[in-house]
This record gives sequence, C-alpha cells and structure tokens, in this order.
Amino acid sequence: MDKTKILLAHGSGGRLTHDLITKHLVQSLSNPLLNKLDDAAVFESKGKTAFTTDSYVVNPIFFPGGNIGKLAVCGTVNDLSVMGAIPKYLSLAFIIEEGLDISALEEIIKSIAAAAKEAGVEIVTGDTKVVNTGKADKIFINTAGVGFIPEGLDISGANARPDDAVIVSGTMGDHGIAIMAQREGLNFKTAVESDCAPLNGLITDMLKVCPRIHVMRDPTRGGLATTLNEIAGQSQVGIELNEESIPVKPAVGGACEALGLDPLYVANEGKIIAIMPEKDAPAVLSAMKAHPYGKDSAIIGRVISPNPGRVSIRTPLGALRILDMQSGELLPRIC
Amino acid sequence: MDKTKILLAHGSGGRLTHDLITKHLVQSLSNPLLNKLDDAAVFESKGKTAFTTDSYVVNPIFFPGGNIGKLAVCGTVNDLSVMGAIPKYLSLAFIIEEGLDISALEEIIKSIAAAAKEAGVEIVTGDTKVVNTGKADKIFINTAGVGFIPEGLDISGANARPDDAVIVSGTMGDHGIAIMAQREGLNFKTAVESDCAPLNGLITDMLKVCPRIHVMRDPTRGGLATTLNEIAGQSQVGIELNEESIPVKPAVGGACEALGLDPLYVANEGKIIAIMPEKDAPAVLSAMKAHPYGKDSAIIGRVISPNPGRVSIRTPLGALRILDMQSGELLPRIC
Ligand SMILES: Nc1ncnc2c1ncn2[C@@H]1O[C@H](COP(=O)(O)OP(=O)(O)OP(=O)(O)O)[C@@H](O)[C@H]1O
Ligand SMILES: Nc1ncnc2c1ncn2[C@@H]1O[C@H](COP(=O)(O)OP(=O)(O)OP(=O)(O)O)[C@@H](O)[C@H]1O
Ligand SMILES: [Mg+2]
Ligand SMILES: [Mg+2]
Ligand SMILES: [Mg+2]
Ligand SMILES: [Mg+2]
Ligand SMILES: [Mg+2]
Ligand SMILES: [Mg+2]
Repeated sequence: MDKTKILLAHGSGGRLTHDLITKHLVQSLSNPLLNKLDDAAVFESKGKTAFTTDSYVVNPIFFPGGNIGKLAVCGTVNDLSVMGAIPKYLSLAFIIEEGLDISALEEIIKSIAAAAKEAGVEIVTGDTKVVNTGKADKIFINTAGVGFIPEGLDISGANARPDDAVIVSGTMGDHGIAIMAQREGLNFKTAVESDCAPLNGLITDMLKVCPRIHVMRDPTRGGLATTLNEIAGQSQVGIELNEESIPVKPAVGGACEALGLDPLYVANEGKIIAIMPEKDAPAVLSAMKAHPYGKDSAIIGRVISPNPGRVSIRTPLGALRILDMQSGELLPRIC
Repeated sequence: MDKTKILLAHGSGGRLTHDLITKHLVQSLSNPLLNKLDDAAVFESKGKTAFTTDSYVVNPIFFPGGNIGKLAVCGTVNDLSVMGAIPKYLSLAFIIEEGLDISALEEIIKSIAAAAKEAGVEIVTGDTKVVNTGKADKIFINTAGVGFIPEGLDISGANARPDDAVIVSGTMGDHGIAIMAQREGLNFKTAVESDCAPLNGLITDMLKVCPRIHVMRDPTRGGLATTLNEIAGQSQVGIELNEESIPVKPAVGGACEALGLDPLYVANEGKIIAIMPEKDAPAVLSAMKAHPYGKDSAIIGRVISPNPGRVSIRTPLGALRILDMQSGELLPRIC
C-alpha cells in the first residue's frame, strides 16, 4: 500500500475515507459546522438567498496564478457575488483519480483554505469519491455556494436597460491564456498569470456607491463576448462596445495573435462585467479603480434599444461589426 | 459533426452549451428560478437551513431500479431529510465525457425530473462541463441541496443516548448488490433491484409521530456497519445489534455469500437508520411500516454506555462480536 497516493479505498466510505476527511479536510478547513460531520451542515438563514454551483475540470490542475482548488472557491464566490449576495457557505466535492499524490491534494486543500479565508466563506459540507486510474483526470472539484442578498438590490442578466453603461473590471483573457500557455508548454516573453480571485470585496465596494447596478456577471467560459450575448438575450437589448476601450494585456494580446484566438472570447476568472444607469457609471468606476482587483476597470460600451439580443463592436477604424456568441469548441477544460 | 453525441463544444460555454442548457435542461426541469439562467438562483429563506452535497460516479450509469440521475436526486434529498430538513432546492452539475450519447443524457435528465417531482424539490441552478474522451467515465453528476428544518427538531449523529432504540427502514444491501450484479454481469435466481428512493415523505411521517428522534442517517457507502460506527464515534456511545433482526433479502444474502461480501457493509440508497428514546420506538416503527418505503422496517438494536465508539452484534448463536468500520476498498463506484 503506497501511503503517498490516493487509493480506491479512500473513496469507499470506510476507514480510509474517514481518516482522509478527519486528517486532511477537517484539520485544514476546520469550522464548527463542518466539524460536526453530519449529513448536512445546518445554519440560520434569513431573507433573499443565492445558491449556485460549478464543477472545475481545469487541465493542468496547477497553473501560473493558482490551481484547481483556488479556482473552485473563487468561481463559486464570484457567481454568488455578481448576484449581489454576500457569500457565506460553500460545499466542496472531490472526484479523485486513483493514484493522485496525496501531497498534490494537500496543496490543493491549502489553496482552498486560503481562498476561503480571503473571501470570508466557510466550507461547511463536502463529499469525496475516488475512481479508478484512467476514469478521471487527476481531480475534479465541485463547489456549491450559499449567500445572502441585502435588501434593496435587484441584479439579474435580464435587467440591462437602454443607455446603461457597460464596465469591465480589468484586462480580458488572462486566465484562459495562462492555462493554454501552461498546457501547451508555450513560452511567451512576458509570463501571463491567471486572474483567478474572489471578487466579493470589490463588488461590496461597488454596491456601496451604487445599489442600483442592473446587471453583474463574471465573463468566464466564452469570455466577454459570449457573456454579453447572454445578457443581451436575457434583457432583450442591444449592446455596443468600443474596441479601443477594452483592456487587454499586451502579453495576452500577443499570445492570442500567435494562437489565433480573440481575447474577447477567452475565459476570465477574476473579472466582472457591470451594467448600470449611465449617470452612476463614474462613481462606480472610481470605486472599482480604488480596489486592487479593479484597478484596470474601464467603461467599454453601452446598452442600446436597436438589435435586441445583439452585441456589436466599433473597431478603431470606426466600423461596426457583430460580436457573436462563441460557436465551436475553442478552449476545452479551461476551468 | 455527430449530432447524436456530446461534443467538447457542449462544454465550452458558447453556442452549443447554451443550446444544450435551453433545449435539454430548462425544458425538462423548468421552474421560474432555473429558467432565469442567472449566475445563481435566488429564493427566500427563513430559519434553520440544511445544506449538503454529493458527487455520483456510479458504474454502470444505468442499473436495475434506477440510473445515475435518479441517484443524484435521491441521495441529496436523503442527506437533507435525515437532518430533519424539508428539501427544497437542488443544484445539478454534470461532468460529461465527450462522446456520450445525447439520448443517454436525455434519459438521465428525464429521471432527474421524475425523482425531483416525487421528492417535491426543484433543480434551480447547475453547471455543465465536458472533458475529452478517456478523461472521465460517461458522466459524473454532483448535486447540492438546500432544505429548511422545522422548529423543535434537533437531529445529529452526535445525539444518540444510552437506551435509545436503533431502527432501520428496510432490507440492507440492495443497492450495492444491484450495481455489482449489473457491473459484473452476474445472474442471480432472483433479480436484485436498487432501493434508490427519496425518503423525505417517510421521514416526515416519522417526525410527525416523534419529533424527538435523536439521530437519522442514510447508510450509503460502507453500509449499516460503517454508518453505525460513525454514529457511535460522534455520540461516544456503544451500539449493540441483534443480527437476527436485521432485514436482508434472501437474494441479497445469497449474492453476498457468492461474492464474499457482508450485507451489513454494502451500500443502500433508499434506507435510513433512526435512533430515538426506546419509549418512542413502537410508534415510530408503525409509522414507518405504514409507508411504502418503510414496510420492512425493524428495531435492530440499542444504544449502550459501555464501549463508546464501538458497534457489536449478537449472532444467532448468542455470541457477541465487534462490527468494525469497513477497511479496504470493497466496492468502488457504487454510488
Ligand atoms: N471533500 C470534502 N470536504 C469537506 N467535507 C467533506 C468532504 N468529503 C466529505 N466531507 C464530510 O465528511 C462527512 C462524511 O461524508 P460522506 O460523503 O461520507 O457522507 P454522506 O454523503 O452521508 O455519504 P455518501 O457520500 O456515501 O452518500 C460529511 O459531513 C461531509 O460533509
Ligand atoms: N446541468 C445543468 N442543470 C441545470 N442548470 C444548468 C446546468 N448547466 C448550466 N445550467 C444553468 O445555465 C446557466 C449558465 O450556466 P454556466 O455554467 O454557463 O454559468 P456560469 O457558472 O456563470 O459560467 P461558468 O460555468 O463558465 O463559470 C446558469 O443559470 C446555470 O444555472
Ligand atoms: Mg448520508
Ligand atoms: Mg461560474
Ligand atoms: Mg457524501
Ligand atoms: Mg458566472
Ligand atoms: Mg450522501
Ligand atoms: Mg457554471
């Protein structure tokens, strides 16, 4: 029995599962709700509650700027936060491929604990399954999250209104390019790091100056272009962007050119789109720029009545082209 | 492009993902919260809230008595219900292996819808990822669940008290043996079906006659023996069982003998253990027997003060032996 590797028995529900949970999980993620090890965690709730989930299958599991564990916490924190919720409780479910180094699992758990601490959330319940070698790829993680929405907010992809301003919180495409570079062993002049980060702090600051924000969303898979198409469809509005105002790191732009990708379709894991009445945009923008995760924020376009469901973009030369929802596979297993 | 199979592009977050979600998921699972397709579902909460998660990696994904979809709903409904919660909202996250037949996915979604309907829960949020052929095994599903606990209940694995009665809601080992038989192509004289079922209705009936129930738990991976060991450890009590009173189907007993398994260590997916003051046991038992999912319920033992953390069993010949937590792998990918 190799004590440095995950075995099938770690997932069978018996002694080894129990030891893995008490030794590795409860010790690193310890809190009163989790430590009970009951079938469900129990807490007090009140009012508008947000509930979300994501599975993470990113390949490779360690990458510049993070790993699958940090991603699994930040992604779910962000899906709660963009609904205006204050994220509180996360679940954590592992599907592990037999043979994973226990030291890798430990490093992932350490990142989970650190990200949860930064975001102010607790891992209160979880699950651990193991599948035979070759039936998964190292580790897949699912997190679900619960958060509470303060009174007076009403944020939804369906709430964009003509003349609203569209803001992004920073440069586009960093996460996807960091993964691609690591996966394909590419060497760029300037290293690109994933932007993976919990954005609840940034969003709290934004809502403080403007509780009237209409839409927020994290442009993950499919990137900015796909996410804006979703919003345009849900709200039945047009969206017009100004290409020159969309922030893209030179290294990311260069990598995209080399790879034949458009940064507007590449995944982000630490960025948000926010849409709000135009008059509120300057105040929101300065609150964003004052936060470390929003320092490159920019107003990139506006909501219009014509062409409901359509996103268009004005090029530096003044032409207007349609920015469609991504079709085709582009980048698999980016998150 | 083969339109009958899941492609990598179904998981890339673009057009095909969007079509899969709107065409297959929203249509079959439709409800106002899910249909918004926002980053998180939003609902009103109040009071004690239970939150749980499980991933399902069962192999094969279709088996006698159910499939991975039904299992994913029932398992999470049951983890909420055994805490005394009324299950309300589920998340649903797919990790699909490229190449899965879309017709298989449709059948799984149909079972999810049916099980959710029976349990009275709604799928309100979800996620869909696709990994390359050979990097997963057909489909893995994670569900998380939220439910609300009525006032006056206090159920936990830590609450067993000396002299409490131990009840099980029916025959042990049906699920695990159904999976093993299907997987190994075994042929038993009598077919064994999985007991996979949502137990919230049964549990509501039990709590109506006795809100003082101390412990409930679903004996899934590791079976009755492992689950009782967990409870004995959490409550720091001994548990003494009477072997003759533990219900086991003859076909399951026979299969276990043939396979060298002990039915007390084999997984169940539609059974619960309940522990309560001895004086309440007869009323609870008759409420259980009156419910279709509890008709084979039986009192199988009692809680004792000596040997805290230990489970022992009295054999038909009167000897007392220790029933340890399962060690070793036994049955991988049973749920
Ligand atoms: N990866 C994890 N992170 C945090 N907690 C975990 C993790 N895995 C398991 N746990 C916790 O350990 C305890 C036992 O988990 P387990 O999955 O065995 O329970 P279960 O869901 O009732 O059983 P089954 O998964 O067989 O249905 C639970 O309290 C669970 O929350
Ligand atoms: N398997 C599923 N079951 C139910 N709803 C789903 C499922 N997959 C996706 N959805 C719903 O579809 C919408 C879009 O899901 P998607 O996963 O693309 O959003 P996201 O989590 O914000 O993005 P990402 O997964 O890239 O972080 C969400 O409202 C989600 O709840
Ligand atoms: Mg359980
Ligand atoms: Mg997400
Ligand atoms: Mg579990
Ligand atoms: Mg999102
Ligand atoms: Mg469970
Ligand atoms: Mg998602």
